[in-house]
Amino acid sequence: MKFSELLEKIGASNHSSLAIDPDLDPDITGVAPVQTAQVGTISYVERGRFGAEVNRTAASALILPMDEALQSSAIDRQIAWVSTSEARLLFAKAIALFYQPFQVASGIHPTAVIDLSAQIGEGVSIGAYVVIHADVKIGHEVRIHPNVVIYPEVQIGDRTVLHANCVIHERTQIGADCVIHSGAAIGSEGFGFVPVPEGWVKMEQSGITVLEDGVEVGCNSTIDRPAVGETRVGRNSKIDNLVHIGHGCRIRENCAMAAQVGMAGGVQLGRRVILAGQVGIANLAEIGDGVQVGAQSGVHSDVAPGTVVWGTPAIAYKQALKASAVYNRLPEMHRSLKELQRQLHELQSQINTIENEIQRTDPEA
Amino acid sequence: MKFSELLEKIGASNHSSLAIDPDLDPDITGVAPVQTAQVGTISYVERGRFGAEVNRTAASALILPMDEALQSSAIDRQIAWVSTSEARLLFAKAIALFYQPFQVASGIHPTAVIDLSAQIGEGVSIGAYVVIHADVKIGHEVRIHPNVVIYPEVQIGDRTVLHANCVIHERTQIGADCVIHSGAAIGSEGFGFVPVPEGWVKMEQSGITVLEDGVEVGCNSTIDRPAVGETRVGRNSKIDNLVHIGHGCRIRENCAMAAQVGMAGGVQLGRRVILAGQVGIANLAEIGDGVQVGAQSGVHSDVAPGTVVWGTPAIAYKQALKASAVYNRLPEMHRSLKELQRQLHELQSQINTIENEIQRTDPEA
Amino acid sequence: MKFSELLEKIGASNHSSLAIDPDLDPDITGVAPVQTAQVGTISYVERGRFGAEVNRTAASALILPMDEALQSSAIDRQIAWVSTSEARLLFAKAIALFYQPFQVASGIHPTAVIDLSAQIGEGVSIGAYVVIHADVKIGHEVRIHPNVVIYPEVQIGDRTVLHANCVIHERTQIGADCVIHSGAAIGSEGFGFVPVPEGWVKMEQSGITVLEDGVEVGCNSTIDRPAVGETRVGRNSKIDNLVHIGHGCRIRENCAMAAQVGMAGGVQLGRRVILAGQVGIANLAEIGDGVQVGAQSGVHSDVAPGTVVWGTPAIAYKQALKASAVYNRLPEMHRSLKELQRQLHELQSQINTIENEIQRTDPEA
Repeated sequence: MKFSELLEKIGASNHSSLAIDPDLDPDITGVAPVQTAQVGTISYVERGRFGAEVNRTAASALILPMDEALQSSAIDRQIAWVSTSEARLLFAKAIALFYQPFQVASGIHPTAVIDLSAQIGEGVSIGAYVVIHADVKIGHEVRIHPNVVIYPEVQIGDRTVLHANCVIHERTQIGADCVIHSGAAIGSEGFGFVPVPEGWVKMEQSGITVLEDGVEVGCNSTIDRPAVGETRVGRNSKIDNLVHIGHGCRIRENCAMAAQVGMAGGVQLGRRVILAGQVGIANLAEIGDGVQVGAQSGVHSDVAPGTVVWGTPAIAYKQALKASAVYNRLPEMHRSLKELQRQLHELQSQINTIENEIQRTDPEA
Repeated sequence: MKFSELLEKIGASNHSSLAIDPDLDPDITGVAPVQTAQVGTISYVERGRFGAEVNRTAASALILPMDEALQSSAIDRQIAWVSTSEARLLFAKAIALFYQPFQVASGIHPTAVIDLSAQIGEGVSIGAYVVIHADVKIGHEVRIHPNVVIYPEVQIGDRTVLHANCVIHERTQIGADCVIHSGAAIGSEGFGFVPVPEGWVKMEQSGITVLEDGVEVGCNSTIDRPAVGETRVGRNSKIDNLVHIGHGCRIRENCAMAAQVGMAGGVQLGRRVILAGQVGIANLAEIGDGVQVGAQSGVHSDVAPGTVVWGTPAIAYKQALKASAVYNRLPEMHRSLKELQRQLHELQSQINTIENEIQRTDPEA
Repeated sequence: MKFSELLEKIGASNHSSLAIDPDLDPDITGVAPVQTAQVGTISYVERGRFGAEVNRTAASALILPMDEALQSSAIDRQIAWVSTSEARLLFAKAIALFYQPFQVASGIHPTAVIDLSAQIGEGVSIGAYVVIHADVKIGHEVRIHPNVVIYPEVQIGDRTVLHANCVIHERTQIGADCVIHSGAAIGSEGFGFVPVPEGWVKMEQSGITVLEDGVEVGCNSTIDRPAVGETRVGRNSKIDNLVHIGHGCRIRENCAMAAQVGMAGGVQLGRRVILAGQVGIANLAEIGDGVQVGAQSGVHSDVAPGTVVWGTPAIAYKQALKASAVYNRLPEMHRSLKELQRQLHELQSQINTIENEIQRTDPEA
């Protein structure tokens, strides 16, 4: 399609701060990264590090940030362009024009083992070797990839996708339009053991896990169910790979968790909380709306809404940054301190000498 | 059942420091979290944060800590109660009265592919699409969920449960009464590569992994086998989700590891060691009996029995707590140090001035 | 076989700094760890911690480092030995003489569900319940264990092994002689969501993941594909369990990543980079050839070739070690600083007193 047609299809004119090169309108047949783009593709440039790529790319069109220098470069190189403060969003829409992820074939594969009591919606796709236990309810147009196992009494909402080899444990409720990626385990038993002198007594995990609509869970992530009550992930929250969410956590809507984040039991996340990779959050901590936590932080206690924190234990980001900068100077500070002690000792000697001197010379002494 | 009957069934009278409200004996039909409990349920209150819930809960009965204020609140609100210093344990027993986890149907599913040389005990349940290779020995009443793969020469003890999609590698020995949760990989190849100028030479992992009786392994956790000898997890040790245990580790009995803990090769844990979430332990470190390691710690060397450590590298908990508290003041300390240097320099000038003055005025000069 | 024959078979004479005990030539029937070795086995001793085992082991032969004391001990105890600076490598070769890992039976199991459009090479082994989608190309002598799912358009090179329950996503290219361990997910969707006021817009992940020849990926590790372009793992790189590699990372050849390492999007690793356990690397960071990163480090920015770094944020290892050593003395430093301030204040008073004194006694005042 023509570049102009593409811009129309992705609703470019609705985007803020838009500027378009009026002179060029190449044919666009695909999307590509700016470094390896070929003629006929559209690409995008966003971060400073990639700006220079405009001078090298073979892309026929570019989505640019609002940056006149980059626009000039594109014009010089006869590359069609559109500029917006939402370049990443526009690029996402462009990709979606050319690409649809693979889906398992429609219908129910004859090898799927489905309990007679399960209720299956219309337009459902169920792959080979899927196992669905008793009293499961599957909504309409749900797509289940091969080798998924669904324990009893699970509910899955319309259009949700379960990728290969994931396991949905008993009584889990998954909303509509969710995506569970390969190998994830949802609603598994919380880690509940009571210490006794002889070892550990298991606390049965009789609760449930609930994922609201639009939740994504990454590959091999695990979301446990609690002893009583529920573990809940709010609407539209996105969870990356290898994340652990402990029993009884309550996560509100629109949160994002990067890979390898871990949450102990009973953690509460507000709305739009963002956790960077490998963050850990302690038992029962309450994290307010809009909080952002830097990578590898260890959050040991409640965090007020809207704050940005970092470190272990996590503190205000700016404070953490300052402390971290000084940290590298610790050996130097330690030497300075020793030197100060020496100098101070010396000054003390000098003063003592002076006092003796004065005493010696004081006419009244 | 009546509250009094429930207390008898869970052996409440054997628990330490017990006190019971003699006046109320409601019907109890289930367990619930204190915040969302309905009439007819029993719940429990343990931590300070939840104490106020006694004034709001609709639960008909409560398991309380030894706390007279909470008891009074329960009495005021006509809630039956029992008090004990082991509230959590008693609640675990109450849950077990009302709840049994789902188990795969008894018998062997016709789709299970079982090598003719495998020995299968009595009363075993094997789910759909399970694959059991040659020379495997399965004990009595073992329950194997769908899509589990068991490599050759594995031994599995009586009553052990393997959840869906977990993989037990060749020659692994799993004891009785173990639970392996979904997606865990047990006895997989240790990460053994010898550096050579051209890259890496693989060291074959000819050893085995042994889990003693009563071990639990969480979802998607991995326990590798070594090049020679064994990796061993001691009786009744409990391992949470996404934990990695490297080749040749030797873990003694009754340890507990929270989610995302990682152990390099050859680590040794004593008895009743507790590792909080995301802890890492370096190659060959020996951790003594009863050691507790705080979340996200990096243990770089041996730890003496009975100590509590924290941090990276992990040090005595109290020391780490003090250092951590001072850490946040580093920018302030750095400024103080600069200020001290300035002041000291100034004092030095003053002293020099005084010495000159004295010299000038010294009658003997 | 005789010890001398074993040495010949493993090419011992090609190894550097070799010395051999000429007098003993026992029969060797297996390999074993030095602590539990039996008569008839060969073992090895490498690290200082294990040196004393030479005085206790029942092994009939030992591979030793170039250490005369250990050689003497072996001679005293009538243990045959060979000494080399490459003891670990020689031991790896000895293990390979006695051990071959289990492989799935040759041929295609009748329960495997293979799309008619898939191209399958010669001498391929495909286990029970494997699912292979459309347009997949499988090379010669590839071995695929049970319950593996291969999405459409995947290519797998000759002799590659896929262990049980791993998932290979659409369009992934895996080279020859790779090993993908149980439960790993390769080529899954990158974590791509664009923030908008209402929540998140998904960026489709239309790129691919490429593993070059000789790559190993550990159990339950995840390697995502990007929105556009490719995620690439270079030839002969080795990845341990539970590692996450984000979308668009480019890893060069011969790297090694220990368990639970996490890489955000677009990270670039040079050749022979070694990442210890639980290391995290931030978005787009470029790590030079030969870099080594200590356990649990957080790498926030580019790292120059050949450097060794540690800490969060990671800095030069020696500097990090010094800072870490001082860190433990922070409480003491804080006290010293307070004490210095007090002493300095006192000195100031003394000096003021002296100045007053001088003024009083100055004949010219």
